[in-house]
Amino acid sequence: MLPAVTGAESLLRTLLLNGVDTCFMNPGTSEMHFVAALDRVPGLRGILCLFEGVCSGAADGYARALGRPASTLLHLGPGLGNSLANFHNARKARSAVVNIVGEHATPHLRVDAPLSSDIATFARTVSSYVRTSTGPADVGVGVSETIAAAWGPPGSVATLIVPADHSWTEGGLPGVQASLTAPAPVDDAVLRRVAELLPLAGTMILLGGMAVNPRALDAAHRISVKTGAKFGIARNAGKMSTGRGRFQPGVVPYFPEGALPFFADTLNLVLVESEVPVSFFAYPGIPSYMVPDSSLTTVLARREDNGTLALEALADLCGAGPAQLSHTPPLEVADDDAPLTLEALGRTVAALLPENALVSDECVSSAVPILTALRSAPPHDSMPVTGGSIGQGLPLAVGAAVACPDRKVVALDADGSAMYTLQSLWTMVRENLDVTVVILANRRYRILDIEMRRTGANGFGSLAESMIDISRPDLDFVKLATGMGMESARATTAREFAKLAREALGRRGPFLIEAML
Amino acid sequence: MLPAVTGAESLLRTLLLNGVDTCFMNPGTSEMHFVAALDRVPGLRGILCLFEGVCSGAADGYARALGRPASTLLHLGPGLGNSLANFHNARKARSAVVNIVGEHATPHLRVDAPLSSDIATFARTVSSYVRTSTGPADVGVGVSETIAAAWGPPGSVATLIVPADHSWTEGGLPGVQASLTAPAPVDDAVLRRVAELLPLAGTMILLGGMAVNPRALDAAHRISVKTGAKFGIARNAGKMSTGRGRFQPGVVPYFPEGALPFFADTLNLVLVESEVPVSFFAYPGIPSYMVPDSSLTTVLARREDNGTLALEALADLCGAGPAQLSHTPPLEVADDDAPLTLEALGRTVAALLPENALVSDECVSSAVPILTALRSAPPHDSMPVTGGSIGQGLPLAVGAAVACPDRKVVALDADGSAMYTLQSLWTMVRENLDVTVVILANRRYRILDIEMRRTGANGFGSLAESMIDISRPDLDFVKLATGMGMESARATTAREFAKLAREALGRRGPFLIEAML
Repeated sequence: MLPAVTGAESLLRTLLLNGVDTCFMNPGTSEMHFVAALDRVPGLRGILCLFEGVCSGAADGYARALGRPASTLLHLGPGLGNSLANFHNARKARSAVVNIVGEHATPHLRVDAPLSSDIATFARTVSSYVRTSTGPADVGVGVSETIAAAWGPPGSVATLIVPADHSWTEGGLPGVQASLTAPAPVDDAVLRRVAELLPLAGTMILLGGMAVNPRALDAAHRISVKTGAKFGIARNAGKMSTGRGRFQPGVVPYFPEGALPFFADTLNLVLVESEVPVSFFAYPGIPSYMVPDSSLTTVLARREDNGTLALEALADLCGAGPAQLSHTPPLEVADDDAPLTLEALGRTVAALLPENALVSDECVSSAVPILTALRSAPPHDSMPVTGGSIGQGLPLAVGAAVACPDRKVVALDADGSAMYTLQSLWTMVRENLDVTVVILANRRYRILDIEMRRTGANGFGSLAESMIDISRPDLDFVKLATGMGMESARATTAREFAKLAREALGRRGPFLIEAML
Repeated sequence: MLPAVTGAESLLRTLLLNGVDTCFMNPGTSEMHFVAALDRVPGLRGILCLFEGVCSGAADGYARALGRPASTLLHLGPGLGNSLANFHNARKARSAVVNIVGEHATPHLRVDAPLSSDIATFARTVSSYVRTSTGPADVGVGVSETIAAAWGPPGSVATLIVPADHSWTEGGLPGVQASLTAPAPVDDAVLRRVAELLPLAGTMILLGGMAVNPRALDAAHRISVKTGAKFGIARNAGKMSTGRGRFQPGVVPYFPEGALPFFADTLNLVLVESEVPVSFFAYPGIPSYMVPDSSLTTVLARREDNGTLALEALADLCGAGPAQLSHTPPLEVADDDAPLTLEALGRTVAALLPENALVSDECVSSAVPILTALRSAPPHDSMPVTGGSIGQGLPLAVGAAVACPDRKVVALDADGSAMYTLQSLWTMVRENLDVTVVILANRRYRILDIEMRRTGANGFGSLAESMIDISRPDLDFVKLATGMGMESARATTAREFAKLAREALGRRGPFLIEAML
């Protein structure tokens, strides 16, 4: 006779059977049987986070870095609530996440206990799929369906709610294979239509989603050389390959004043895992759509399609041969005694960045000079804040470093942003993750300075000013990091920053640099 | 001609007209006009928090301490997401909160911008009332209705979603009076029925909600002396008056092993702003309801009623005269060189606590010895975690200290719990709040040790163990506090703790003590 399997054991076995071997967790009482099963069902790596927003952001980073899902384990509605902001970014990045949420035992649901809440409604805000298991025998099926929903395509946050008694009761299936869906093949008719329109003046091919990888960029470059079509990168890409030796189309500018000219000549917009580009926010008198109304729009690949294969097929159909990139010279470290600037910081990071690094970009208002410099860095992947929800940068770095232990991870994080999910540092230390954190400390919500003027809210008096100023008291990130066991130091000059960056990027393990700007 | 009023100005004027003069905020672009209006519509105190869970917990603390609502200002769905865990506690405490959430400008809603999400669904998880303004002229009406919904009775989180263009467009009403509802008067028939049943053996009157205040407790004491009825305090009370010189019924024990005997003799349960008591969590083989099925249940006052008036009327109806409490001797400070224990810590806090202090209790697994000692402290109010969502303690202290600047606030916070919303310390420093924070540092999620055994999850191997152990790396709360500009120090012996507690409790302003347990 086979040994009895609890629902929790069935859950773990099903995760493992389907290659989901990592779980970012912050469990509570209703998840204790899942936690206990870690020792009985070997193979699932549990990674404890001190706040659920770290779990969700880490799972997003894991999926972006590795292209397959991790799981999260969260405690009831409020625990899920804490994860939602970063799951919002994961949703916009189309990252696959298998999100497991514990629920009260079913007989306890009718009593409105203190922690009772409508977990499914919490989950619906960010999930493509929400399921509650119906019994221990259903847990394995439920998680296999959740895995399939998470994989997509496109990837998404899929949520399985598991009442505690389903976890602790025997009668679980040993492990259930998920039935994954392959992306649709490239549609030849669409391909031919796009190819026919390519010679049109004003063609702009917008790469997004998963289609900003080296293969896709190489195909794009070939098409560009052969046809003269312009390329751009949409802000919905969860991971963008960039740096020297790669074809580097411009990223759609954040503000409409930049994005409108970017598309001013566009008459033929071709979407590759991207959407018709819109402004991040609305402003009085400025349109929401960034492309002229007169432009044609053709979808070469939807978010659920494989845009990389579509681009390669398009390049072949055009008869585009191999294309050679012009040489980009590397940048030099900024090594003088002047006060540290964003330009110097960007130059130094670009000069010292190890090849194939993963960069978590939460630079916010500091982005332009740094990301411009990074175009001259060795080839690397940059991961932006896809959904605009702040507090993503550090958790994303946690997940990326767990997913890719052989790649250096660099988190470039604005000071205000870092404070939302600073508990990430603790997990970086505990797991000895190879992450260099650079805090961009300008001691303001500086993006709101800009937005305050842009939205026409001109009455920028002292009370409004104090809601944007995050000095008084000044944050000391060296102390904050040390309080979580993380090595750290502060740089106020370009030379100090260069010295710390050499140290942090030249070795393995977590280190935080507070860059005073 | 009257000057034109924007929707944002109408919002602020309506808040102020209805006595809502405090706003805990973490704004973004879509809220810039609200922020700008702070200078044009004087009187609203904006308090910046570095994380939205601090805003929601602070608003809860404000409402509990003062009995009237503050407002919160949050940025879109993800900002609201970060607030939900503490709003869950506010919901269970029936705290009144006027929650304002910015939304994209209406023409921008159709474009699925990166920050687009279903804000109303986020809001529904915790709100009794959700409304989206329909135009600038509707903002004032919307906020007045939201205020009315928040006040109740009972109090609740009520949410108004305001698209940015409604804020920035002129056409707002100057200020709209909210139409508040008075609690229903005490029902004489119910009162007589309860009075008739009072002489029954096994009567247990369970006080909850707002009915654990000095007046209610005095009436309860009179009834107790006159009739011999037993009293208990439900875990749904957001604020409990306790300490020397007050009638102190027992609080329903957290675990069923304590709660079941507490109610074992109960044959006649009388509810005063409380519900039929249930276990916090379910455990295999243990019932959810803590009162014998055979007991009568009578509702003297619902959550929306005034239980205090009902108790006073009941006392009068019974002919209960004034009652004298026996003298409770004060405790002595524990002042020896032994390692600090929970008992010593509780004794010292109880001995030194200023009269009329507000205690934010997030002691979790450390609660029993400390709260037992505090029964001998001078009269004070204790505010527990009503909804079981962890990360409440520090934000609640922020709000209570803003609400009651003349009362000392003491936050007793478990180390694991404090890490969810540690950003609270920054706001305490910025606003120079009179809060003493005591971190109970046992370096474990110790409650989960207990729950792991209780749920029967016996396979407590090394992998499970590491999900409960929050050492590796050790947290250093002195450094963490210093990093946010807060004075702080560590105590490892009873004498060290006593010295620091004397200092912190004997002066005004924020101070953090890391108590090593």
